[in-house]
Amino acid sequence: MSQDANASLIPYPELLGFTTKVFKSLKVPDLEAELVAESLIDADLKGIFSHGVVRLPVYAERLKAGVINPIPEIKRRRDGLGSCVIDGDNGLGHLVGIRAMEIAIDKAATNSVPTFVAVERSNHFGAAGYFVEQATRAEMIGFSFTVGAINHMAPWGGREALLGNNPFAMGLPGAKGEPPVILDMACSVAARGKIIVAARNGEAIPDDWALDERGHPTTDPVEALKGLVQPVGGPKGYALTLVVGLLSTMMTSALFGSQLRHLYDDMENEQNSGHLMGVLPVDLFTSNESFGTRMREVSDEMHGAERADGVDSIYLPGERESLARARALKDGVPMGEGVVGDLIECGRSLGIKFPA
Amino acid sequence: MSQDANASLIPYPELLGFTTKVFKSLKVPDLEAELVAESLIDADLKGIFSHGVVRLPVYAERLKAGVINPIPEIKRRRDGLGSCVIDGDNGLGHLVGIRAMEIAIDKAATNSVPTFVAVERSNHFGAAGYFVEQATRAEMIGFSFTVGAINHMAPWGGREALLGNNPFAMGLPGAKGEPPVILDMACSVAARGKIIVAARNGEAIPDDWALDERGHPTTDPVEALKGLVQPVGGPKGYALTLVVGLLSTMMTSALFGSQLRHLYDDMENEQNSGHLMGVLPVDLFTSNESFGTRMREVSDEMHGAERADGVDSIYLPGERESLARARALKDGVPMGEGVVGDLIECGRSLGIKFPA
Repeated sequence: MSQDANASLIPYPELLGFTTKVFKSLKVPDLEAELVAESLIDADLKGIFSHGVVRLPVYAERLKAGVINPIPEIKRRRDGLGSCVIDGDNGLGHLVGIRAMEIAIDKAATNSVPTFVAVERSNHFGAAGYFVEQATRAEMIGFSFTVGAINHMAPWGGREALLGNNPFAMGLPGAKGEPPVILDMACSVAARGKIIVAARNGEAIPDDWALDERGHPTTDPVEALKGLVQPVGGPKGYALTLVVGLLSTMMTSALFGSQLRHLYDDMENEQNSGHLMGVLPVDLFTSNESFGTRMREVSDEMHGAERADGVDSIYLPGERESLARARALKDGVPMGEGVVGDLIECGRSLGIKFPA
Repeated sequence: MSQDANASLIPYPELLGFTTKVFKSLKVPDLEAELVAESLIDADLKGIFSHGVVRLPVYAERLKAGVINPIPEIKRRRDGLGSCVIDGDNGLGHLVGIRAMEIAIDKAATNSVPTFVAVERSNHFGAAGYFVEQATRAEMIGFSFTVGAINHMAPWGGREALLGNNPFAMGLPGAKGEPPVILDMACSVAARGKIIVAARNGEAIPDDWALDERGHPTTDPVEALKGLVQPVGGPKGYALTLVVGLLSTMMTSALFGSQLRHLYDDMENEQNSGHLMGVLPVDLFTSNESFGTRMREVSDEMHGAERADGVDSIYLPGERESLARARALKDGVPMGEGVVGDLIECGRSLGIKFPA
């Protein structure tokens, strides 16, 4: 997820102010507008640009089109001791996701049980790791599964786009003073954006990135763009994306497979995205102190491992993102020309000036 | 995980009888011996030969050496409504895993909460999907994580074998009359066994399978065998194997990283393997009927997807294994010459005749 060479650095408070104003101008209440802006920009701060403000224009477009509800009434159904179903009332996915994870954490803390929350009638929620971080701040292990907002993968052996690149995250609180350890991944070998870049540059792509229209592997990025993205590790990635998608949708009314509504192309219907959020309070199993001590041993051991030639540092999953975040908060958020242009345009249509 | 061309077909009851006798001769009580034999051979029936009776000789060797306890007293610690820690008392991993999942299912059904069970002082438990199937038979979603029994992966950027190829499984009950949908994977691109075969045949391997001793990708299988196995999807697989390993060990005394004890090389110490088992009863979130209906829609849609040229059938994850199982129960379990030889030898040392 790299940015182009002509990246500008936008100060965080200004980007947050701009993004919040965009949401407020589209009838999202103050508190919620800021919450969603914060979680959206959190991805940019961490260098996960694919899930940051690059998505603001499409969220704005969907709010304008009336297919996202700016003032949802998020409701609980089937409320159990360690479970519930949440109807997101078609609110912004980040907001619904944050509330769902808050409910999971609250139930788990109150009732001292692992808690899982199934969410229906939500929208694209950004980076799955954000919600897992909420859990780790509460000394809980977190899980977050969602269904991708566009289908561009086929079942293994197929050539029909029936599956999204369904992302999931799992994470644990880190050693004291260290960031949490978070896996946050989607199930394709490479993001579709990388194939677009290869096509622009006339370069071949590795043969495990994509399928052509006939369902065969191709190294031609132009053919690949007419076809499908390949799952990571072949059949492993297919199984993974299918199971993550089922976990996110089968226990509610959330849409899956051919029913899925395209984030960019369908401006007439609500998405009805599904998520599954889960938490395990560490202190149900061991003391937070013992857990922290063991995490410290692992952290020291991995960081101190013998390195391959030419490698300067070894990181734990989530650590690079945490370092990038600290840097961007200080120096500004790196943003490519293209994205800046889109945001200027998005702001202009709403009478909001993008920070110079 | 293919078998060689000279595979014989061993009738299931005879293989089960032989394996049970081996365990009984090593002081495992009757009921437990049969239970472990069944779960072990279940992998062979499904075509997952890497986790089947090929492992019997090493389990027998560990029992003989006194580093596996044939008559464990499995104990619960920190017993909560939807959680507990289980001390496996150094019993056979299959037995401890089955008991742990039974406890999770029982608690979840009794208390109507998602339940997770952390296991310490266990051993190599075979195929992770087996335990998830226990959950799906009880109309629950299942999770199963474990730490691999040999370290042959490095943290990303490293060249030191500090990580196992940690397997995990996640699965859901299937549509009525269909097998459950189960993801069961380890975190390497390719099993080490495939590299051994390439080395024997003098063939190059793809450059993302393995690292040489210096921590660089290699296509030479001989160099690869001196080095390390590569994670699936590069840094994704590293993050995945680390997080699966942490989930399996950090909440108990189970060993991780450089502390890990080698399944084959260390015949002096108990392994203290860790697992994490989890279940979500479907009916906490929706009726089993609605769930089944939705799973049916997905099954029909995936099976009916347009196929790539030359592909006969599309399968759901776990379906091939289920079909293989039915075939092997009828026709016999396919077993290669090498494995048969090892089993004959293993039986001979205990005075048990392998079925002709």
